[in-house]
Amino acid sequence: MAQDLPQLLIIHPPLSLTHIESQLSRKFHLLRAWESEIPLDQFLTTYARSVQAMLSSPITRVNADLLRLLPALKLVATPTAGVNNMDLVECRQRGISVTPSGSAFSEDVADIAIGLLIDVHRKISAADRYVRKRLWTSKGEYPLGFKLGGIGIVGFGNIGSEVGKRLEACGCIVSYNSRRKQQALPYLFYSNVHELAANTNALIICCALTDQTHHMIKKEVLSALGREGVIVNVGQGAIIDEKELVRCLVHGEIGGAGLDVFENEPHVPQELFALDNVVLSPA
Amino acid sequence: MAQDLPQLLIIHPPLSLTHIESQLSRKFHLLRAWESEIPLDQFLTTYARSVQAMLSSPITRVNADLLRLLPALKLVATPTAGVNNMDLVECRQRGISVTPSGSAFSEDVADIAIGLLIDVHRKISAADRYVRKRLWTSKGEYPLGFKLGGIGIVGFGNIGSEVGKRLEACGCIVSYNSRRKQQALPYLFYSNVHELAANTNALIICCALTDQTHHMIKKEVLSALGREGVIVNVGQGAIIDEKELVRCLVHGEIGGAGLDVFENEPHVPQELFALDNVVLSPA
Repeated sequence: MAQDLPQLLIIHPPLSLTHIESQLSRKFHLLRAWESEIPLDQFLTTYARSVQAMLSSPITRVNADLLRLLPALKLVATPTAGVNNMDLVECRQRGISVTPSGSAFSEDVADIAIGLLIDVHRKISAADRYVRKRLWTSKGEYPLGFKLGGIGIVGFGNIGSEVGKRLEACGCIVSYNSRRKQQALPYLFYSNVHELAANTNALIICCALTDQTHHMIKKEVLSALGREGVIVNVGQGAIIDEKELVRCLVHGEIGGAGLDVFENEPHVPQELFALDNVVLSPA
Repeated sequence: MAQDLPQLLIIHPPLSLTHIESQLSRKFHLLRAWESEIPLDQFLTTYARSVQAMLSSPITRVNADLLRLLPALKLVATPTAGVNNMDLVECRQRGISVTPSGSAFSEDVADIAIGLLIDVHRKISAADRYVRKRLWTSKGEYPLGFKLGGIGIVGFGNIGSEVGKRLEACGCIVSYNSRRKQQALPYLFYSNVHELAANTNALIICCALTDQTHHMIKKEVLSALGREGVIVNVGQGAIIDEKELVRCLVHGEIGGAGLDVFENEPHVPQELFALDNVVLSPA
């Protein structure tokens, strides 16, 4: 009986739930709050004394208000590496463990970063659209894409390092920016992201969102990247000043973008829908 | 004066012409046959005695009929690696040199192969289409893609070897099929493409089109690849039995395809336009 299994609270379903649900169901009694018709606080109150574990989604705000309703909680697991939806201080004070995914998905995210980078440079999605509109037969060849060149990695953690490996194999000159220079790394280090942008053809944003990185990619950095520069974001949306990015793309002040994250998901600035030099991924 | 420069005949413009035209114009007087209003044979007759060099496109058939009209010809340059549009025996008998691009574009083609492979696995173009149709806000998350796994390279020349490097960096188990096993290569060798398909999750076609490779990827090979298998073709269209490929895709007998080449370009089988698990590139 599911009722005999330990409870696992899920307030909003994380994207990967469909893939792990059957496995989880064998070991836990899943409390599916998002499917319940009773208001969330009532739902939580029902299980307040019993629920010890919760699986969180990036949109679940794990803050003092929520934790107050769950006095028995001991563990918050999350299928993402980012924890900026969680009040970690509050969790620590209440003795609640937090287990982010860490590097478990780094290789997948790095693959997506390379996929987006090549897609923008080689115009893969735009060319696919061109063929599907039957323009190849009526209007002739689609313009060629351009080569990958010098690429800058912003944030050199697990994801950044996996991205670096892949870029090296593609013959790119790899540069990076992170809090400190990493010894024994064969890549060029730039101590600030502006210098990195000025010396590369594309930036791949792999860092976490913090107070320091919020809107770190702003007007000056985009200008330094230049009219042929490409930006790929697999970090978090708010690392880029999205309004400024949209303005630069619309006015051709940068060359293109591959975006796996947005500032206000699932809202995507609709100016981007008209552009062929951007690739939009609903992360 | 352009007229004082050596003549360079171009019957059909190769795709890359726009990129190299200004450089070429400085060194050659370009004879742009495709822009002329007089019939091609008359055009060629006008220059028959003088033209010694020709830049060919993959659709220019360099055969005995053409070469007979160009008795002064000494060189055919082509911006592609493939030469199956040329009668090499006839060229040799007439003392005409042929200079295919060789490995000059191998890295670019390998980048495109990896871009198509990741695109199909991670549903990048399909997800971009989903976002642009504003379905992310109305219908919710797009299904997750799947990991790259064991990948088989068909044809291990310059392009295949560049593809191998990139796959290794992506953490894939790399296997290959070619005429002979290459010593000192850390990849698994399969002596036939059927075995390769049966033991991998995706095939990347990198070989040249010859009598031996024509329709080498046929029904049995596609069945061996299986319902989740992916095929990427950056070789030439006719290496795959395209009718059979379309049938397998339409019936879900293979998992997806990234196609940079087609059997009868620019004709693309229109059944593919309805499928989200294919990426179509007008090479």
